[in-house]
Amino acid sequence: MAVSSKKFQAPKGMRDFYPQDMAVRRYIENIWRTVSINHGFDEVDGPTFEHLDLYTHKSGPGIVSEIFQVFSGKDEAERAAVQRTAQAPFALRPEFTPTLARMVAAQADSLPKPIKWFAIPTMFRAERPQRGRLREHVQWNVDFIGVPSEGMFRAQADVAMLALMVAAFERFGLSARDVRVKLGDREAVRRRLKLEGRDQAALDDDLTLLDERPKLRPDEYRSRTRQLGWKDALVRLYDPETRLVVRLDDMSSLPDRERQDSEDQRKQAGSLLYEIDQAEIAEWCEFDSLIVRGLAYYTGLVFEAHEATGAHRAIAGGGRYDNLIESFGGPSLPACGFGMGDVVLGNILHDKGLLPEDVYMAPLRPHAFVVAADDQAAAQLPKIVADLRKQGFHVRHSYKTTRNVGKLLGEAGKSRACFAIILGKELAENKAVVKNLESGEQGDPIPLMALVEFLRAQSRRV
Amino acid sequence: MAVSSKKFQAPKGMRDFYPQDMAVRRYIENIWRTVSINHGFDEVDGPTFEHLDLYTHKSGPGIVSEIFQVFSGKDEAERAAVQRTAQAPFALRPEFTPTLARMVAAQADSLPKPIKWFAIPTMFRAERPQRGRLREHVQWNVDFIGVPSEGMFRAQADVAMLALMVAAFERFGLSARDVRVKLGDREAVRRRLKLEGRDQAALDDDLTLLDERPKLRPDEYRSRTRQLGWKDALVRLYDPETRLVVRLDDMSSLPDRERQDSEDQRKQAGSLLYEIDQAEIAEWCEFDSLIVRGLAYYTGLVFEAHEATGAHRAIAGGGRYDNLIESFGGPSLPACGFGMGDVVLGNILHDKGLLPEDVYMAPLRPHAFVVAADDQAAAQLPKIVADLRKQGFHVRHSYKTTRNVGKLLGEAGKSRACFAIILGKELAENKAVVKNLESGEQGDPIPLMALVEFLRAQSRRV
Repeated sequence: MAVSSKKFQAPKGMRDFYPQDMAVRRYIENIWRTVSINHGFDEVDGPTFEHLDLYTHKSGPGIVSEIFQVFSGKDEAERAAVQRTAQAPFALRPEFTPTLARMVAAQADSLPKPIKWFAIPTMFRAERPQRGRLREHVQWNVDFIGVPSEGMFRAQADVAMLALMVAAFERFGLSARDVRVKLGDREAVRRRLKLEGRDQAALDDDLTLLDERPKLRPDEYRSRTRQLGWKDALVRLYDPETRLVVRLDDMSSLPDRERQDSEDQRKQAGSLLYEIDQAEIAEWCEFDSLIVRGLAYYTGLVFEAHEATGAHRAIAGGGRYDNLIESFGGPSLPACGFGMGDVVLGNILHDKGLLPEDVYMAPLRPHAFVVAADDQAAAQLPKIVADLRKQGFHVRHSYKTTRNVGKLLGEAGKSRACFAIILGKELAENKAVVKNLESGEQGDPIPLMALVEFLRAQSRRV
Repeated sequence: MAVSSKKFQAPKGMRDFYPQDMAVRRYIENIWRTVSINHGFDEVDGPTFEHLDLYTHKSGPGIVSEIFQVFSGKDEAERAAVQRTAQAPFALRPEFTPTLARMVAAQADSLPKPIKWFAIPTMFRAERPQRGRLREHVQWNVDFIGVPSEGMFRAQADVAMLALMVAAFERFGLSARDVRVKLGDREAVRRRLKLEGRDQAALDDDLTLLDERPKLRPDEYRSRTRQLGWKDALVRLYDPETRLVVRLDDMSSLPDRERQDSEDQRKQAGSLLYEIDQAEIAEWCEFDSLIVRGLAYYTGLVFEAHEATGAHRAIAGGGRYDNLIESFGGPSLPACGFGMGDVVLGNILHDKGLLPEDVYMAPLRPHAFVVAADDQAAAQLPKIVADLRKQGFHVRHSYKTTRNVGKLLGEAGKSRACFAIILGKELAENKAVVKNLESGEQGDPIPLMALVEFLRAQSRRV
């Protein structure tokens, strides 16, 4: 080979997934996928990069400086345009929602309603990497599109989102003590701000400040409220220490009148509280007046999931966006959805000890590790291994030249195989010795013909 | 919402995966993953984009015009450099091997050997899209690194690649009549070309021509051989009509002497023919003197899988590359590997009728579709659905307001659910009617308490 030797690094903020890392990633993705399917969602995906204007259309021109841009090295016109403008025609997807809106709009007439979709794509952000925030991450996206925006189904769709999110948390071993699902209502906050005398024109800036509040130091926050001209009463209303937070399984902190309203709601099918009770997720949920989400396209309920101690960034966020599909050229279809990334979730699971190796490695355990005790057995090993694999078993074997069975069994143990199949002198009678690597048990030699039946019966129990 | 309505398209040559498309993609990926794991390979992945020079290091500067380039819209220095040079610092991965080599080199000391890895990433090519060739596709990559480059294990590693590929074909329902695994030996062809009087310096060009031969018209091929100065005997030797192709399960076309050598090989553990026989894949394989692969880094056996009629591009290709890891700054580790994309494979499966809906939709069938026959039942439905989902079942229900059970059962049928659970007047006795949607059978109402047991017992048979 003509090239010289050179060592390379992964780009900053991008991950290499070695087998253990990949096992964790697949473990997380599989739980996302399983609960999504069980809850009646269909999986979709789109291109890894899209036309840049798909994102500026939704988020404005400011997004251009927050994303990775893409151009073809083959296309002279594209290269010339990039050179002229420092802007490329494509962008690596920073989020899935614009792709989803584009796909729904393109086939809105033929798609059966409601549209319940999930996706598990990778996303990209041109930001300085930090804890909980990388340049490439995997994100679970769920969207529920085209249920009536009024009546019973509206709340059922909203709660379907929350219930799905909670179902995933439960599968990961998290409890309502570990994670809080915080609900807010952008419209309700807008109404409240108007009641407090704020101008219609100032509301977007007010909401942006509320959304950014958790990331600000107290003095930064106060200085921003002064810039916006907030009165003291308003500052106190949304003070992070004293603001209203109401656990949905304990509404005793509410004033009498509101408590009565809430109790009435709980009895009324189609109300948010009723549906939350029916879905058995009330203990996870709380109203929090600081939850408004940063994006202007939300039109109703918004929500975020947070680790309870507040030591991490938000785990997930979403809400209702009834006008988005229409803005991408589709019909008017009410919708709600959320996204959850793998980085913050993975950090939390790790910190809480919920990612032990035997959990995420379980689907990857070999059924059997085959070892050869002599040269004759070594020559027959490939065919026996091939036959077991054809039967659907995960089978490994040694690539060492030693015939030291003890050493080979050590290697079998390291592979986490359930059984070792030892090929030795019993092969002359078409038999093999099988050792249970968990119990250490080793029975009489088993006829090769019966190996499949034996492993099949055992693997149900594994 | 402030933005106006606008319709968008996916970028040319990129795919939208609607639920049916995604089910097919997952079906293909799952078979790749299952056979890889059963054959003892561990899954890995790397970043979607890498430093551009990772690819120029392996393939030379020409690759720059064949890939999609990436830069951060946030980084002023990057944008300025792109503007100056029309070249970006990163590239969307056109192949996985450089990432793999980088990852192995980085942890070569601590990784247990041999390294048996597979990956199922998406790849990107800045080319004009055409049948069988898109700008983004999913590619199965398998690599076997660090077995001795001599002796028994060398051939075992080569054959492990072929056997894994064949195992996937078998799972997809393809037979040795549908697909041919064609073996070549770059070194053997080089030796032969020298025997025919070719200069050492001309060999790379000769091999490139042989690799491109299947895509050339006969007159183009002849004109290229003239340019290279090939003698008539050499042109005839590699003529696509008359060249040597030997099926490994039928070597009768070989001259006596070579047939004898081959028969000796078949008896000798560690020879390619012996290991191919042991893996029971001889009927799939043939030697083909035109198989040399386009890439200069192959150092021994090379192979391609082709649909038997030749109507499609190659399904897969790979070979031995004993020097690659070292060239990426790692130790000297012999290696072999292959890649298989989802596009050509998907076309072939589709053309041969091997992608019926009931096959790829099977894992996505709901266990139950719950319908409510009256308003009281409709109010109880969410909780019953939530409870069944908590037990791990895939449960769907109607979002229609009709109480016309016939219509709702029609919807249940369309969902492909195994059972319909009908909530009606029997709810007063905490019972529900269960209808088998395949047989049409409908037994006595079942207590709600027994629903889980019933579905669990049935879903084993589904």
